[in-house]
Amino acid sequence: MSRNEPSLIPFFAPQGIVLVGASQNPVKLGYGLARNLVHSNYQGAVHFVNPNGGSLFGRLIYTSIAQVPDPADLAILLIPAAAVPRALDECGRRGLQAAIIGSGGFRETGQEGAELEQDCLRIAAGYGMRLLGPNSIGLLDTHLPIDATFLPPPGPLPGDVAFISHSGAICAAVIDWARGQGFGLSRLVSLGNQADVNETDVLGAAAQDPYTRVLTLYLEGVSDGRRFVEEAGRVAREKPVIALKVGRYASGQQAVASHTGALAGQESAFNAAFRRAGVIRADTSEEMFDWARALAWSPLPQGRSMAVLTNAGGPGVTAADALEANGLVLAQLQEETTASLRSMLPPAASLKNPVDMLASATPEQYARCLAALLVDPGVHGVLVILPPPPTHTAGAVAKALIPIIHASSKPVVIALMGERLIQEAVEHFRAARIPEYRFPERSASSLSILVERAEFLNRSREVPAGTNPVSGQAGRELLQAWLSKEQLASNGFLSQGVVLELAQTYGIPTPPTDIATSPEEAVRLATKYGYPVAMKIASQDIAHKSDAGGVLLHLSDAEAVSQGFAAILENAKKLKPQAEIQGVFIHPMYLSGQDVIIGAVQDPQFGPLVMFGSGGVEVEGLNDVAFALAPLTQAEASDLLEKTWAGRKLKGYRNIPPADRQAVIDCLLRISQLASNLPELVEFEINPLRVFSMGEGALALDIRARARYNQLSTI
Amino acid sequence: MSRNEPSLIPFFAPQGIVLVGASQNPVKLGYGLARNLVHSNYQGAVHFVNPNGGSLFGRLIYTSIAQVPDPADLAILLIPAAAVPRALDECGRRGLQAAIIGSGGFRETGQEGAELEQDCLRIAAGYGMRLLGPNSIGLLDTHLPIDATFLPPPGPLPGDVAFISHSGAICAAVIDWARGQGFGLSRLVSLGNQADVNETDVLGAAAQDPYTRVLTLYLEGVSDGRRFVEEAGRVAREKPVIALKVGRYASGQQAVASHTGALAGQESAFNAAFRRAGVIRADTSEEMFDWARALAWSPLPQGRSMAVLTNAGGPGVTAADALEANGLVLAQLQEETTASLRSMLPPAASLKNPVDMLASATPEQYARCLAALLVDPGVHGVLVILPPPPTHTAGAVAKALIPIIHASSKPVVIALMGERLIQEAVEHFRAARIPEYRFPERSASSLSILVERAEFLNRSREVPAGTNPVSGQAGRELLQAWLSKEQLASNGFLSQGVVLELAQTYGIPTPPTDIATSPEEAVRLATKYGYPVAMKIASQDIAHKSDAGGVLLHLSDAEAVSQGFAAILENAKKLKPQAEIQGVFIHPMYLSGQDVIIGAVQDPQFGPLVMFGSGGVEVEGLNDVAFALAPLTQAEASDLLEKTWAGRKLKGYRNIPPADRQAVIDCLLRISQLASNLPELVEFEINPLRVFSMGEGALALDIRARARYNQLSTI
Repeated sequence: MSRNEPSLIPFFAPQGIVLVGASQNPVKLGYGLARNLVHSNYQGAVHFVNPNGGSLFGRLIYTSIAQVPDPADLAILLIPAAAVPRALDECGRRGLQAAIIGSGGFRETGQEGAELEQDCLRIAAGYGMRLLGPNSIGLLDTHLPIDATFLPPPGPLPGDVAFISHSGAICAAVIDWARGQGFGLSRLVSLGNQADVNETDVLGAAAQDPYTRVLTLYLEGVSDGRRFVEEAGRVAREKPVIALKVGRYASGQQAVASHTGALAGQESAFNAAFRRAGVIRADTSEEMFDWARALAWSPLPQGRSMAVLTNAGGPGVTAADALEANGLVLAQLQEETTASLRSMLPPAASLKNPVDMLASATPEQYARCLAALLVDPGVHGVLVILPPPPTHTAGAVAKALIPIIHASSKPVVIALMGERLIQEAVEHFRAARIPEYRFPERSASSLSILVERAEFLNRSREVPAGTNPVSGQAGRELLQAWLSKEQLASNGFLSQGVVLELAQTYGIPTPPTDIATSPEEAVRLATKYGYPVAMKIASQDIAHKSDAGGVLLHLSDAEAVSQGFAAILENAKKLKPQAEIQGVFIHPMYLSGQDVIIGAVQDPQFGPLVMFGSGGVEVEGLNDVAFALAPLTQAEASDLLEKTWAGRKLKGYRNIPPADRQAVIDCLLRISQLASNLPELVEFEINPLRVFSMGEGALALDIRARARYNQLSTI
Repeated sequence: MSRNEPSLIPFFAPQGIVLVGASQNPVKLGYGLARNLVHSNYQGAVHFVNPNGGSLFGRLIYTSIAQVPDPADLAILLIPAAAVPRALDECGRRGLQAAIIGSGGFRETGQEGAELEQDCLRIAAGYGMRLLGPNSIGLLDTHLPIDATFLPPPGPLPGDVAFISHSGAICAAVIDWARGQGFGLSRLVSLGNQADVNETDVLGAAAQDPYTRVLTLYLEGVSDGRRFVEEAGRVAREKPVIALKVGRYASGQQAVASHTGALAGQESAFNAAFRRAGVIRADTSEEMFDWARALAWSPLPQGRSMAVLTNAGGPGVTAADALEANGLVLAQLQEETTASLRSMLPPAASLKNPVDMLASATPEQYARCLAALLVDPGVHGVLVILPPPPTHTAGAVAKALIPIIHASSKPVVIALMGERLIQEAVEHFRAARIPEYRFPERSASSLSILVERAEFLNRSREVPAGTNPVSGQAGRELLQAWLSKEQLASNGFLSQGVVLELAQTYGIPTPPTDIATSPEEAVRLATKYGYPVAMKIASQDIAHKSDAGGVLLHLSDAEAVSQGFAAILENAKKLKPQAEIQGVFIHPMYLSGQDVIIGAVQDPQFGPLVMFGSGGVEVEGLNDVAFALAPLTQAEASDLLEKTWAGRKLKGYRNIPPADRQAVIDCLLRISQLASNLPELVEFEINPLRVFSMGEGALALDIRARARYNQLSTI
C-alpha cells in the first residue's frame, strides 16, 4: 500500500466522527473519549451513539448508527468485542469509511477472539472500510486538532514529534512524560492488534503531516519487513525516523546449520534493516525522545568536530569523555578563535577546547564566547554546559544565549546541571526550541545523532551493482533443475556437486576439485595437482566436516594421501554411519592468503541477509561479523569490510600483506545476488573464502548450502 | 594514612568553626558561607573573622583570628589566595587543627599559584594542621548537621548517600538535582586541589559515618593508586562504593613497545583497580545516583532471577529486554505461584513472567500479585511496572504496594511510566525509601547493580597464591646482577639471554634454544632437534621480529636451514643496519596447541597490571584481552580466562581440543609475581604462549622485556 493511500484519510483528516459506545458514566472509556473529542477543539462533526440514548456534553446521543447525520466518515467503537462485528456492519451500511476499534477481547485473548477479529476484517473489507485496532487506545493530532483517545486529560502539548506505537500503555506514559519533559507531540497513533492498518501504513501517512518534523516508533516487530524497509527508507530521506524496537530477547533461536545461521538472529536482521532504511535505533525511551527533540529543533552539523563551552572544569571533562564515547571529536580551535576568547575572559580561563570560562562567567561572556566558537569554521557544533552559576542566574544565561543559537546554522545543545536552580533556564530553552538535557552525557549523545543524520543524508544510496551476468530467472531455473533431479537430501543440504555448479554459475571462484573414490584415484589426482594437497570428505550429510575428522591438510606425499583417504572414510563412518559418502575431494593446498567467511541467510521478516567476517572454525567464538540486507551496493559491501577486523585486516597489518579486497567485495555482491534470486536457499556459506594478494583474487575453499525443504517441494 | 586518622576529625565533627573572610555583602561567598553555617542548625560554635569587624547574623565579627574564643578547631578561609599563607599561620598559632581553603588562585593558575600552595602546605605541616582544598566549595553533613559550603540554599535533604567530588561545580549541580529527584545526601565533600587531604582520606572517613549507606565518588584520577585500591577495597566490604571516573579520553598514550603496553591504557588500569577493590563504576551521573538509591534502600538479591509485574504488555517486554541486557534472567515461576496468580487475575491475564495483570489491575491485585511473586523461591527480585493506570490512581497502587515491599527480604524496584499522573506515587515511594525510576530500563540497570553487589560480597578475596619459589628479593637480585653487567641495551630491551634466564628463574617454561652464529652451526642444531625447526633472529635491538623478516618456521631440511640463516641476517641488516645481532635462535617446531598472549606492564597509578588474551600478531586488531592488577589470585587468573575468547577456547571448541588451562593459570600467576617483584620491568610479554593438551603444559615461544632505563640506573 502506498503512503498516499486515500483510504487512510478518514483517520487523519476526518469530516465527522461517530463514537459508538459513548457513555454518560465518567468511569467508562466511552465517556473519556467523548470528553476528549469535545474538549480537543476538533472542528469536524462529533456524533454519539448508545442504544440507551440521552445526551452528553450538550449533544444528543443517537440510539443507532443509522440515525447519524452527515458529515460522518470515521467510527470509533468502544463496545464489547462480541458486539463489534454487527456495529461494523452498521457503520458500513451508514457509509462510514474507517473505524477505530478501541475494544479489547480479540486475537490477544485466544482462538475465539482471533476468529472475531477475522469477522471484523471480513465485514470491513466488504464495505471497503479500513480498521485501526482492535485494542487501540486511539489517535490524536495536536494541530488539526483532535483527541480521539480515551486517556485522562490533559493530552500532549502541540509539538513536532509524531509517536506511533504498538503498545497502548506506552502511549499513555509518553503523553504524560512528554508534558513533564516540556516537549509536544504532533500526532500519536496507537496501532493495537493491527488487524488491518499497520505501522508501515501509518508511518507513511504521518510523514506527510507538515507539522511533524520527526517520527518516533515503538515497535514490537514489523508486519512486512521488506515493505517496512522500503517505506521507512523513503520517509527517512525526508524526515528523521527513530525506532525503539523491543522484544530483543523474546525471539527463540531456530535450528540452524551454518555459522551464518547461528549468528544471524532477529536482531541482526532488524539492525541491518534499520541501517538500510536510515532508521535510527534507540535503546531506551528516554534516548528516543532526547534524540527526537534535537532532530526536530536543531540544524544538522557539517562534521564531527564539536566545541564544549563551560564555566567549570569537571563537567567539561565529562562532556569531552561523552563526545568521544559517541564517536565525535573535540574541535581544534583556530588561533583567531583563541585570541577572541582571550580578549573576553580572565587570564586563568582555559582557552583550549573544552573552553572553561571559570565560575565567574557572566551571561554576556557565555553569549560572546559561544558566538566566537560558532564562527570558527573548524567547529561543527557546540555543547554548552550550564551548572547553577554561583553569581548569576541560569535563566539570565539562557536569555543571553538564545539569540546567538537562533542566529547560527550550527547545532547547539545545552547541558543544564541541576534541577530547581535551572528551572527558569529550562523554560526559556524549551520555549525557544533549543534542546536541553540534564547532564553532559545525554547532550553529547544527541549531538552524535545529529551527525549520524547528516551523514545519512549525505550518503546517497547507489543502485545495487549488477556484477553478475546471471539473471534472477537463470539462477532460479538452475536451482529448479537440480532440485527436480532430486539431488536434495532430506536434511535440506545440497550436494557438493550442486553447490559448486551453483557457485560457478554465479561467478564465485572455486578451486579445481575432483572426487576420488579410491586411494589409488586420490594419489593419481594429488600427483596431477602437485604436493602438498588437501583432502575433504564429500558427503552432503556431513555439515561440519572438520568436526567429523573429514578434513586433512598439508599431505605431502603419496603415502600420506593413501592413508588419509582411508582415515577420512573411517572417521566419517564412525561419526555418521548412515551418511551417504560420494568419496573424497582432492585439491591443491593454498598456503598463503587471508581467510574470511561470507554467508547469506533468509530472514523470515526481511528476506536475504548477507554476513561477512572472520572465518574458520571460531566464527561464533570471535563474533567478528557484520550483516547487511541483500541486495548490496558496492558501498554497503565495502562498509561490511570496514565494520570487522577481518575486513580491515585485508588492507594489510604488520607483517600480514594486503589482500585482494576488491575480490572479496565482488564475491559479496555475487552472494548477495544469489541470495536475492533464490529465497529457497535458506543458508549459503563460504568458509573460508581464501583471499590472495592484491590482484590475485580469492577462492571459495568450502561452500555449504541448505534449502528450505517444504518450500522446495512446491517449486 | 589510616581511615581512622584522628587529624581528620575537625573536618567531620568540628567543635567550633572560624570563618575567615565572613562578609556582610550578600553577593560575596563569605556571606553565603556564613548564612549556610548559621541556617544549617550546626550545634557547635560559629565565629566570623573580617578585619573590617562589624556583625553578621546577630554575631560579632572578630577583626583577627587571634581574638576568636574557644571552642574552635576548624578554619574556613575565603580570602584572596595571596593572604592565605599568613592566615594559616595565624590559625596555627591560634591552635586550630584543620582548615578548608575555599579560595582559588593556587596550583590551577600556574607556577606562582603552585608555589603559594606549597607555602600553605608547609605552614600547615608546621602546626600539624590538615588542609582541605584549595578551591574546595566546602563540605556538609545533613545529620550532624552542618553546611560549610557557600552554595545557594537550600542544601540537600538528609539522606544516606555520601558524595565526594574532585569537581566543585558537580557538587552544586548534584545538590540541586538530588532535591529534584527526591533523594537526600548524608555528606558532601568538595576536594578541590587536594594539596593535602585527598579522595582516599575522605573515603575512609566518610565510610565511618553511621548515616552513610552508600558512597559515591566523582573522580578525575586518584592520588595514590595502590593506597586507593586498598582503602576502597576495605570500605567496599562494608558499604557500597560507586565511582564516576572522568577523563577517559584525556590521557595521551605513551610510547610503548609491546602489545600489552599498547592495549593497557589508563582506563584498563582503572577498571582493573575498581574491580579489585569492589568499586562499582558508573558511566554517567544519572546512573551513579540511580544505583546509589537502590543500594541504599534495597535488600540484596540471592540470585539473578527476576520477575516483572505489569499492567501492560509493551512495558513488560521492554523490561524483559532490559533485564537480559543487564545480565539478569527472567525467573521461571513455580506452579504454586502461577496458580495463585490465576486465582487473583482475569482469564486473559498473562501468568508467565512478565506477569501482565491487564489494564484493569486494581491496587489490591498489584499488591497480592507482588506478594505471590515475592514468596516464590525462584524469584530473587521484582521489577514492578506502573504506567498511569486507566481506572485507578498510581498513588493508590503505591500505597498498596509499599507494605508488601517493606515486609520482604527481596529487592523490588518500581518503573513509573509518565510524569504528572504518577507524581503522588513518586512521593509515596520516595518517602518509603523504595527506588523508583521513570522507565523500565533504568529500573533493570539498578536491579543488576544489586546483584553485582551481592556477588561481590559473596566472593571472598583469597590471598594471592605463592606458586613461585623465587622470593621477591631473589628476583630483584637476579635482575640487578644482569643489569650491573650492563647487558641492557640503550632502548631498555633486555637481551634474549637475560629474558630467558629470568623466565626460567620464575618457573616460566621455555623451549630449548641455542644460538647459531653460522649456517653450519644452524644445520647442526637443527639436526640435533629433528626437523622441522623454527629460526628466529637473536638481537635485543629488534622488537617485532616477524615484522623484520626475522622469523622462519617449518624449515624441513638442512638446505632450508642454511638458506634461512642467511635470509634472516640479511633481512635484519636491511631493516636495522645498526642492530647488534647475536645470531639466530634454532628451536623445534611445535605443531599443535593453542596460542595465547600473557603480558605485564607497570601502570604509573596502580603498579603492575597483567594482561591475558588472544595472541599472535593480531593482538591489537582482535582486542580480545583482559587486564587485572597484580598480584593475582587463582580465582582472578581464572576470571581473566573467562573474560576472553582465547581463554574460553582453552576448554575446547568444536574440533579444537581442550588445552592445559591450568598451565596458563600457573604462568599468569608467575608473571604476576615477576611483575610485582620487579617494578623496573615496565613491559614483559610472552607472545605466543603455546598451550598444549591437558596435562602437557605450555611453552613461552617468544618473550620480550623492557626495563625503565632511568629507574634501572639507580638500582
